[in-house]
Amino acid sequence: MELQPRRALPPAGADPRRPRNLGADSGTGVAFTRDPGTGQQGIYGDYLQNAQGEDVVAGIRNTVPLQDLERIDPASYRQLLGIMETLENHYRDLCDIEFTIERGKLWMLQTRVGKRTAAAAFRIATQFVDQGLISMDEAVTRVTGDQLAQLMFPRFDLSGNPKKITTGVSASPGAAVGQAVFDSARAVEQASAGEDVVLVRRETNPDDLHGMIAARGILTSRGGKTSHAAVVARGMGKTCVCGADELDVNLPARQFTAPGGVTIREGDVISIDGSSGTVYAGEVPVMASPVVEYFEGNLGAGSGELVAAVARIMEHADATRRLGVYANADTGDDCARARRFGAGGVGLVRTEHMFLGERRQLVERLILAEDEEGRQSALDALEPLQRGDFVDILKAMDGLPVTIRLIDPPLHEFLPDLTDISVKVALAGDSASEKDRKLLGAVRRLHEQNPMLGLRGVRLGLVIPGLFAMQVRAIAQAAAELKKAGGDPRPEIMIPLTASVQEMEISREEVVKVLAEVEAETGVSVHTLIGTMIEVPRAAMIAGDIARSAEFFSFGTNDLTQMAWGFSRDDVEGAFFSRYIELGIFGVSPFETIDTEGVGRMVRIASEEGRAARPDLELGVCGEHGGDPESVHFFHEVGLNYVSCSPFRVPVARLEAGRAALLETAGGSDTR
Amino acid sequence: MELQPRRALPPAGADPRRPRNLGADSGTGVAFTRDPGTGQQGIYGDYLQNAQGEDVVAGIRNTVPLQDLERIDPASYRQLLGIMETLENHYRDLCDIEFTIERGKLWMLQTRVGKRTAAAAFRIATQFVDQGLISMDEAVTRVTGDQLAQLMFPRFDLSGNPKKITTGVSASPGAAVGQAVFDSARAVEQASAGEDVVLVRRETNPDDLHGMIAARGILTSRGGKTSHAAVVARGMGKTCVCGADELDVNLPARQFTAPGGVTIREGDVISIDGSSGTVYAGEVPVMASPVVEYFEGNLGAGSGELVAAVARIMEHADATRRLGVYANADTGDDCARARRFGAGGVGLVRTEHMFLGERRQLVERLILAEDEEGRQSALDALEPLQRGDFVDILKAMDGLPVTIRLIDPPLHEFLPDLTDISVKVALAGDSASEKDRKLLGAVRRLHEQNPMLGLRGVRLGLVIPGLFAMQVRAIAQAAAELKKAGGDPRPEIMIPLTASVQEMEISREEVVKVLAEVEAETGVSVHTLIGTMIEVPRAAMIAGDIARSAEFFSFGTNDLTQMAWGFSRDDVEGAFFSRYIELGIFGVSPFETIDTEGVGRMVRIASEEGRAARPDLELGVCGEHGGDPESVHFFHEVGLNYVSCSPFRVPVARLEAGRAALLETAGGSDTR
Repeated sequence: MELQPRRALPPAGADPRRPRNLGADSGTGVAFTRDPGTGQQGIYGDYLQNAQGEDVVAGIRNTVPLQDLERIDPASYRQLLGIMETLENHYRDLCDIEFTIERGKLWMLQTRVGKRTAAAAFRIATQFVDQGLISMDEAVTRVTGDQLAQLMFPRFDLSGNPKKITTGVSASPGAAVGQAVFDSARAVEQASAGEDVVLVRRETNPDDLHGMIAARGILTSRGGKTSHAAVVARGMGKTCVCGADELDVNLPARQFTAPGGVTIREGDVISIDGSSGTVYAGEVPVMASPVVEYFEGNLGAGSGELVAAVARIMEHADATRRLGVYANADTGDDCARARRFGAGGVGLVRTEHMFLGERRQLVERLILAEDEEGRQSALDALEPLQRGDFVDILKAMDGLPVTIRLIDPPLHEFLPDLTDISVKVALAGDSASEKDRKLLGAVRRLHEQNPMLGLRGVRLGLVIPGLFAMQVRAIAQAAAELKKAGGDPRPEIMIPLTASVQEMEISREEVVKVLAEVEAETGVSVHTLIGTMIEVPRAAMIAGDIARSAEFFSFGTNDLTQMAWGFSRDDVEGAFFSRYIELGIFGVSPFETIDTEGVGRMVRIASEEGRAARPDLELGVCGEHGGDPESVHFFHEVGLNYVSCSPFRVPVARLEAGRAALLETAGGSDTR
Repeated sequence: MELQPRRALPPAGADPRRPRNLGADSGTGVAFTRDPGTGQQGIYGDYLQNAQGEDVVAGIRNTVPLQDLERIDPASYRQLLGIMETLENHYRDLCDIEFTIERGKLWMLQTRVGKRTAAAAFRIATQFVDQGLISMDEAVTRVTGDQLAQLMFPRFDLSGNPKKITTGVSASPGAAVGQAVFDSARAVEQASAGEDVVLVRRETNPDDLHGMIAARGILTSRGGKTSHAAVVARGMGKTCVCGADELDVNLPARQFTAPGGVTIREGDVISIDGSSGTVYAGEVPVMASPVVEYFEGNLGAGSGELVAAVARIMEHADATRRLGVYANADTGDDCARARRFGAGGVGLVRTEHMFLGERRQLVERLILAEDEEGRQSALDALEPLQRGDFVDILKAMDGLPVTIRLIDPPLHEFLPDLTDISVKVALAGDSASEKDRKLLGAVRRLHEQNPMLGLRGVRLGLVIPGLFAMQVRAIAQAAAELKKAGGDPRPEIMIPLTASVQEMEISREEVVKVLAEVEAETGVSVHTLIGTMIEVPRAAMIAGDIARSAEFFSFGTNDLTQMAWGFSRDDVEGAFFSRYIELGIFGVSPFETIDTEGVGRMVRIASEEGRAARPDLELGVCGEHGGDPESVHFFHEVGLNYVSCSPFRVPVARLEAGRAALLETAGGSDTR
């Protein structure tokens, strides 16, 4: 963690009470009541003999550790320790103190609650609980989801003393190792060849997007937290250090130099720490986070003070929160991890991947089928495969709700890209294969100008006979099989992209029919809720009507954000978001934190009107906002039943949901 | 016009008063108090001797003209005329009467207000005014915008007695003439060769889309008004006759046969009338509509009873309406026509075309520019060209408001298509030109997954320095030039795609700055409003805030519909709209008539909250809904200041705006 530079003190002499530098029995120092780096109790700080207050802060002269004061001026030292204890008991928190000694007399200049690292925050909070100074409620409000997230990233193992080159701005957390490359084309080329690369640029622009996608991490010498590199990397969840202005990046020479004569050439390995901003030469080994190991069940709650502190705080947050926390998970393995991370259910199973891999051929058969029979035979071949997928998922989540979204993307996503196949067929000329020609025909026919706004979601279900039915049958049979075997499967079926009452009614009718058929065939009845995503703006406007045939709503805030703002994330994040942040149009990307005024207003309208129409309507959110701290507070306030996010974000959401409940009780409006 | 089959009468004998067929001094007939086809006053109807009531309706036996009754049974005839006058005076409208004569005694069976053609509706309404039976107010409510629109289509000149083949469903109005073609590929091929074609299919499906676009008209043998052909043709504004089920369409033989041994082979010319559903063999000459000729000023208001009736009703509608009616017009010529058609201003000048044609090279230079200077020089070259365009437009609309939308579409729309240029460069291999390679690079860089949701509108303006400024400067200089010459230019500058307050504030600031610069340079001050489109859902949600820096809102209901529903018109209309109409999900396409529940609710919220923030906020709509009768009533009710539509729809909107005001006063909720 970087401790922020303190506010400069007024010049000496401006305040008559301020002492002057008066010789060896005088001096000035800073003290922390606990270690702001680790949270360890003890004596931490610096002392500078023969100096004025600001000299310590300015770092102009070399200080000695505060412990040395015991030798230099034992009386003042003992007095200082007493005052530090008094201050800590008064503020009930880590204090950061400035003091001075004037000819043996100790003066306190200033104190404040001190900044601290994420690890220190958790440890200190529980220490204060143990000292009886604060309650567990208060301890939970003293840490944040962002801090927890920081503790969950893998870290570099610095025990081998790696060579630090420089430090830049910590723009997007994580630890990335790879060969330095100096342009996007090279990044893509090397990454396709299986190499890990770190893209190094003076600054990035929209042309660098492909390279950023290909790289493990991004390092720039210019720009701050709102630079293009920082904004785009955060959006991608990719490690980034930016604004490392000590580096001299020489693109034509494909190298950069750092202070101390270090030169890194293209192909040399570097390691960048997006959490601290540090850049190292060579490969630094990466260690798993002990907090993640604890959530994974590989470490017990007693494994060190940090893990113990996190465990206690999480337990209390869980006991306090009103919001449920579910996970978005698409496979049995994902579900099992989500459960280990504390998910109370699965809020979103995407079923797209169940049409991919070797099954793509079946999808091609489905699309190219020339008659009813051909189409149905492709669907029949898909059904048992998907049934197996659902068995894995429902088994992993036995006893917990699993919200399964029927197929959402347009079918052409399962076919080759239009430009690729066009070029292939054109180059092959007369020798192009019959299959490629047919495929090109289908791709052309299904091509859409704006696939996000095309034939997808519920529209597919209503236009392609048997598609939704196949999926529902696979789910119902999986559930029946598990229930017969003594399990407690709890599937919920979710219709995507609903915009009108009739779409929901017609789909619901089909689902009910298939469920009844499977119940008749298997003799097993599985209670299955039927609901919908609310992800197009119109659905929010007519949610009261939709609620009459939906037992739950899940807000798809990714698509809702895209359609409410009228921009597609893929297209715009790299194209103009950093410019927009620069201009103050966004404080933060609306894909990171929910835009409460626009998108949030729609969520609020739909929640209120949906619940008015159906009081027991279950309300959740399954967009990525479900794992964003600030957004979690908003969803708590709106009164949703749960948020659902990626398994890795589940602990963050659990903590923030607890904090939201506590801050609400405390009447606080501060979301951090 | 087709008169709808009447409700069948109950079987004879079920009602004791119903007479039986009793010989030559008995009979049954139908009578109209005026000609329902033309509105002409006189004796219209049919009489059938020796028959029961339903025999006339069923059309089983041949009837005689009602005038013949004067000869057959003069007493009953005179009595009938008297009763007809009584009925017409009572109902104050055209009556449609069923009667029977039982051994010389006249019985009235039933009467109702009769259906009529569009031309009859206008004539009859003014006739009744002249007879003192109804007021002009009532006359206006008795005709509809749809009827007026019908009168404005060109018609076939039937004086040459063309050969009628059959009649189908009148699915989309207009008169189309062309060679019959039997598949889409052929339609595209022939159309590219400059031939007019009519696409003939049993029924259409999404694969026929390209052929439908290429054809002048569409003829199918199956399906009704909600079939794929009908829905898509109406969406395209293309003439269509569907469900002509007497035709036997033989696709493999590339021909169809009709009753009476007619065979039409591919390449034979046919003529289809989408307003009546009639299909003719050969080329039928097309006549301009006299109503359009009147609006164009080529015919005076005294040119025949129909034109006179239309003129009187339009004049009264104009005197009554509260809604202004503006036009969407992009050139001086369009503006002049809009003005002739009664537009009170221009609600939307699209400026995209000002970057096309020969200017495309300048746009390429702008996009490929490698530095600030190159970009600015391309903009500087565009400016005087656009200034000329604006002079034409503002001159044509002198004294009336002209709302100019700054450039909206993404820049890649001005470059070649990605697939085309990729194939071209791939095929050229090493001999591909440097320019094509550069272009391919730019096209790839600017390529968007979802261009509708990409870098366009205000985003372009904020990201590309100087682009909006160039347009504003061109507008301001055009206005200054005209004002200096004694004109009264009234430009209004409209920012497209605004979604946030800050976008509006920043753009406004730039516009204000450029206007002030031009004012300083020219010494001429032109009052220029600055406002925004409301076309993304978020803008509607925060309209109250946006109104603080916008002097007007214009609802872009096309984009608003696309984004609120989450579908792109180009992609979905052909793909699933007919299926949706079939399933009852839509009554009518939401691109034809505004979806009041979803999109309309957003318009309402934005109007209310915008006006609350700025009471004199000018509100209009410039989506195609502005010319749709039902939508006009909605916009009237919401309290907009004006609707803006294509020049051709301006009279329709004027009439419906008058009707909306009158029906509101009358407390009626009927929109027709």
